[in-house]
Amino acid sequence: MIKAGIIGATGYAGAELVRLLLGHKEVEIKWYGSRSYIDQQYASVYQNMFELVDATCMDDNLTELAKQVDVIFTATPQGFLASVLTEEILSQVKIVDLSADFRIKDVEVYEEWYKIEHKSPQFIEEAVYGLCEINREQVKQARLIANPGCYTTCSILTAYPLVKEGLIDTETLIVDAKSGTSGAGRGAKVANLFCEVNENMKAYGVANHRHTPEIEEQLGYAAGKPVYINFTPHLVPMNRGILATEYAKLNKKTDGTLPTYEDIKAVYDKYYKDEKFVRVLPKDIFPETKWVEGSNYVDINFKIDERTGRIIMMGALDNLVKGAAGQAVQNMNLLFGLKESEGLELVPMFP
Amino acid sequence: MIKAGIIGATGYAGAELVRLLLGHKEVEIKWYGSRSYIDQQYASVYQNMFELVDATCMDDNLTELAKQVDVIFTATPQGFLASVLTEEILSQVKIVDLSADFRIKDVEVYEEWYKIEHKSPQFIEEAVYGLCEINREQVKQARLIANPGCYTTCSILTAYPLVKEGLIDTETLIVDAKSGTSGAGRGAKVANLFCEVNENMKAYGVANHRHTPEIEEQLGYAAGKPVYINFTPHLVPMNRGILATEYAKLNKKTDGTLPTYEDIKAVYDKYYKDEKFVRVLPKDIFPETKWVEGSNYVDINFKIDERTGRIIMMGALDNLVKGAAGQAVQNMNLLFGLKESEGLELVPMFP
Amino acid sequence: MIKAGIIGATGYAGAELVRLLLGHKEVEIKWYGSRSYIDQQYASVYQNMFELVDATCMDDNLTELAKQVDVIFTATPQGFLASVLTEEILSQVKIVDLSADFRIKDVEVYEEWYKIEHKSPQFIEEAVYGLCEINREQVKQARLIANPGCYTTCSILTAYPLVKEGLIDTETLIVDAKSGTSGAGRGAKVANLFCEVNENMKAYGVANHRHTPEIEEQLGYAAGKPVYINFTPHLVPMNRGILATEYAKLNKKTDGTLPTYEDIKAVYDKYYKDEKFVRVLPKDIFPETKWVEGSNYVDINFKIDERTGRIIMMGALDNLVKGAAGQAVQNMNLLFGLKESEGLELVPMFP
Amino acid sequence: MIKAGIIGATGYAGAELVRLLLGHKEVEIKWYGSRSYIDQQYASVYQNMFELVDATCMDDNLTELAKQVDVIFTATPQGFLASVLTEEILSQVKIVDLSADFRIKDVEVYEEWYKIEHKSPQFIEEAVYGLCEINREQVKQARLIANPGCYTTCSILTAYPLVKEGLIDTETLIVDAKSGTSGAGRGAKVANLFCEVNENMKAYGVANHRHTPEIEEQLGYAAGKPVYINFTPHLVPMNRGILATEYAKLNKKTDGTLPTYEDIKAVYDKYYKDEKFVRVLPKDIFPETKWVEGSNYVDINFKIDERTGRIIMMGALDNLVKGAAGQAVQNMNLLFGLKESEGLELVPMFP
Repeated sequence: MIKAGIIGATGYAGAELVRLLLGHKEVEIKWYGSRSYIDQQYASVYQNMFELVDATCMDDNLTELAKQVDVIFTATPQGFLASVLTEEILSQVKIVDLSADFRIKDVEVYEEWYKIEHKSPQFIEEAVYGLCEINREQVKQARLIANPGCYTTCSILTAYPLVKEGLIDTETLIVDAKSGTSGAGRGAKVANLFCEVNENMKAYGVANHRHTPEIEEQLGYAAGKPVYINFTPHLVPMNRGILATEYAKLNKKTDGTLPTYEDIKAVYDKYYKDEKFVRVLPKDIFPETKWVEGSNYVDINFKIDERTGRIIMMGALDNLVKGAAGQAVQNMNLLFGLKESEGLELVPMFP
Repeated sequence: MIKAGIIGATGYAGAELVRLLLGHKEVEIKWYGSRSYIDQQYASVYQNMFELVDATCMDDNLTELAKQVDVIFTATPQGFLASVLTEEILSQVKIVDLSADFRIKDVEVYEEWYKIEHKSPQFIEEAVYGLCEINREQVKQARLIANPGCYTTCSILTAYPLVKEGLIDTETLIVDAKSGTSGAGRGAKVANLFCEVNENMKAYGVANHRHTPEIEEQLGYAAGKPVYINFTPHLVPMNRGILATEYAKLNKKTDGTLPTYEDIKAVYDKYYKDEKFVRVLPKDIFPETKWVEGSNYVDINFKIDERTGRIIMMGALDNLVKGAAGQAVQNMNLLFGLKESEGLELVPMFP
Repeated sequence: MIKAGIIGATGYAGAELVRLLLGHKEVEIKWYGSRSYIDQQYASVYQNMFELVDATCMDDNLTELAKQVDVIFTATPQGFLASVLTEEILSQVKIVDLSADFRIKDVEVYEEWYKIEHKSPQFIEEAVYGLCEINREQVKQARLIANPGCYTTCSILTAYPLVKEGLIDTETLIVDAKSGTSGAGRGAKVANLFCEVNENMKAYGVANHRHTPEIEEQLGYAAGKPVYINFTPHLVPMNRGILATEYAKLNKKTDGTLPTYEDIKAVYDKYYKDEKFVRVLPKDIFPETKWVEGSNYVDINFKIDERTGRIIMMGALDNLVKGAAGQAVQNMNLLFGLKESEGLELVPMFP
Repeated sequence: MIKAGIIGATGYAGAELVRLLLGHKEVEIKWYGSRSYIDQQYASVYQNMFELVDATCMDDNLTELAKQVDVIFTATPQGFLASVLTEEILSQVKIVDLSADFRIKDVEVYEEWYKIEHKSPQFIEEAVYGLCEINREQVKQARLIANPGCYTTCSILTAYPLVKEGLIDTETLIVDAKSGTSGAGRGAKVANLFCEVNENMKAYGVANHRHTPEIEEQLGYAAGKPVYINFTPHLVPMNRGILATEYAKLNKKTDGTLPTYEDIKAVYDKYYKDEKFVRVLPKDIFPETKWVEGSNYVDINFKIDERTGRIIMMGALDNLVKGAAGQAVQNMNLLFGLKESEGLELVPMFP
């Protein structure tokens, strides 16, 4: 059995890790770290775990934890892992970091968008961006995984094949994303109260959301050149789910015509046909967040608008699963040579 | 592998059966019956099943189905199973009926509350009321299981130990129940439209809901005498979950005092301590539907009000799991001698 | 124009007062008091008021405010008004208090349920309990109005005629109430976050909610004897609305039979036929919270269950209107001799 | 008093017309037309109107109705008005049509997008597109008003000043819109059931929604040239509200620089400063649908992204008020020379 520790186990992403790992046959959770609820019964913080988890919350002493477990998940605020990580720790355990600390290769970009000084830039280079479908082989060799953000996982996977194959003009790429409220975390803020979110919808972080440079960096690798996009997240009155609607000009084919449905479909299939967790839907069936809820799937589809020469790409995932904890488990499976879908064969729950 | 057929596979309860059975190691679904969607891809009706179920919807020919499978689940409207069931069928397969057809032993009571003539009363006697925690041994021997209703499972289990042990005056028992909207089914009715249910709450079926005689019959067996209750269901703007709040006068002890918290707790523990799917919560922690969502758990607790001499009992479950498909699978496990929790070890999903 | 001041203008009840008073022809708001947002633009706290309210938030100096206005609404935490009220203030202005400070005549009962020392018990006697339909004449003469609680307004009005006329056995009265989340206020608490409330339902304050003694006191006056009830509030995933479902044994008529539908209906009509804001619905049409949303109406109906000899009474209102701000305005109208419905002729909004 | 008739009074838009007209001092509703509920009490279909409306539903005989009233609102399916309208009717009454029949000047475009033959193209030319803020003077002179669609009102008003003044490149304009579910109407369809919409989000009508040509036509007039856009509507789990997020490249100024915040703000102010129902929000405060709920306001703001040279424009309105019934009343006020805001001075309801 692999021994796992979670730092930040009482946030929503941390709690989802607990849910998934309890159903994982090869893993045992040894450490439920939570600075806010230290010494309290975990099941008193997440009552769904009553009779399922009999443990009290521990502190966030990474050095001590590293001695006791094989893998550490850090579902912590930005800056935490960077401030405590050491070579000694990394030589003892694998780390899957659900924060943004090691996602962005250019430390200046990180510091500019996150308004935090990066305390351990020396580990940035070796960190592997854990988008399994794209970086699978590198993940297997890594010590430190930068688990992708929720919006970014959805936004990148939805556009990736077309960017990689040069089918769209990345200068025209716009990502309009909508998220359920669990993405905002469990912190007690007026803006996230039921009465403020329910029956309401808004854009936020317009033109300055921190997931922007992460999407740009990864799509830039695919494009082979810098990519700059507009990314606008919106808050939707639902618990889980992200829907990304993406727009771009299609590059014309050499004969001057637009690519056809079949052309585009073939490219998506090339990349995702054998990917268990990416489902390219049948023609004209568009992704809905509810159809993937509770599962590790990303549902993707697209529509060509010949009038404007644009393609509309759409992707949906559960922000706490494929957008956070599920992908973290998928990365862990790769790190330890387990079956990639172990613990993740969850059927979406509807309704 | 046990071969299973589902009649009514495209209703919400039927679809939940599919979700659960896909995760069950010993069962294979061979027949997705759906009169409304016959010959259509099942995954086109429930898109969450895309790439998970590759089957088209079949008809509801029970005679034919009985030859092909080991167990049939009927998630059908009242009257269907009674109108087609034969001895020949029952000699070939086990049946778990999610409708009310065989739940009530007195056929006159059935016909009065359901306003339907019962077409095969000869099978009523042998049918076992499949509330596993109470009738486990009978279930194991049965051919025909009357799977309990959603409200009834919640209402009965919440009060059962106290009724059985004579701690409450059943003449004062009142059940005020609240349900998510999936209990209303997938039929297209104005009353169940999003805009009619959302931001709304109402009582319905006041003093005449069909689950009333079912609760009364079962609690009557426990009490050893007829029980008549008030049962009031309410519709709540959420997808899943039933919360039953039950009120009754506590019978005084022989010394004239009220039973204490410890007295009552001991009785609940006597019945439920070893029951995996019934969780009696810690003192003053009350059930919430979200804490059991997606799982087969019933969470129960109670509070004594010394001012009025009443006890308030509360129970919560997921109406589609323990209130329907989960309990059906639990019954199937008992019928076939499998581990009772096989396929049902689902961690509740929060948020 | 009557000049009004609001202390606690940035809570949900305070904001609803602003909404209602902006549409009131005889009133002008002169003071938006809010300790938390002092010196901030009111419209920056409630953006719906952009271009409608051009004022900054003031402090809660009641002495100063009393010199500037004709009426003060205090939508403040329990204990605030009692701690600052003086005879001098009361000699200058009328006060409508939306807190519980002056609702309960027995100061010991107040202190026991609220766990607060009452700082100005000398004003309790003169305070009038502002349930307009019942205490209309006393309200007109008052200086200090104790505006009823949301649950209490609904619970009392639903049962009042039957209690007053002795048609039900008050010893058997049980109130099972369900409320939208705005009743929990705008404070930033984890329990009120969208993700905790949405898709969830729970009972709370079981057997000890503070509205219990308030209901008991008022129904006690109607009954002419002490009344003790079970009152159980529940939290429902919607913004606005309270539904109270009440149960009691019907007293038999002198001939030993139960009262009929017509008997009961006649009693409700006796009390409410001429009440603009109380609507007794047609037979078998039950109250739904959405049908009164945004308005000052209470919708009421009942059902007799001859099997158990009980009556089920149901009432629905908008907790922020008839359950708080609307009733406060209704009281103000009475205090100043205005048309009772002035500013309150709001058509319920559906959907 | 102006006498009004409504055809389609039992749809959501029709019911909202009733709500608004009941609060309008100069209008009296004489005819509640509803083919589906003919001869039934209107208040039995919309229970919020109990004791407020005492009328039975009438048929949709426009010829007869025209003789009895001064103005007719048709909140009917596409094609209805076109199939029954005559010169005789138009010579007797003013008509405000909430359907799309007379919104599009080019009958071929109408027929292509709506897949319906237009039965009275002879009235298209004289019909005035009733977007009051833009066509106020023409509306005053009209007999027949084509009341704009909900998405279109929001989409057009959000971009109009910048298109009119040539500040954005209309070839790059993309409208990503999100709507509450009341926009889907009150028809009983599985896709609009609570359990299908709740906790879900999806795009629909991708690249072929019927509001596309309407937006294009109106923005084309503003631009002085044909405009083709991408318009993608999404369904959101809330009752009311539309949020439009719009993207376009900013045209550079003559000095080669991008327009500044102040440049853009000045243009919005030029068009909307004196418009009561359009509120351009303070810098960096973005529209939220809840802040306009129940009111006739459109809240608008924008953000310049210098990295991409695009502007993100956002607009929010209540689809049943400014997006349908409110705008219809505003048009009626103009038609009859009443105060434009009469009956529409509704304060948005929050929460």
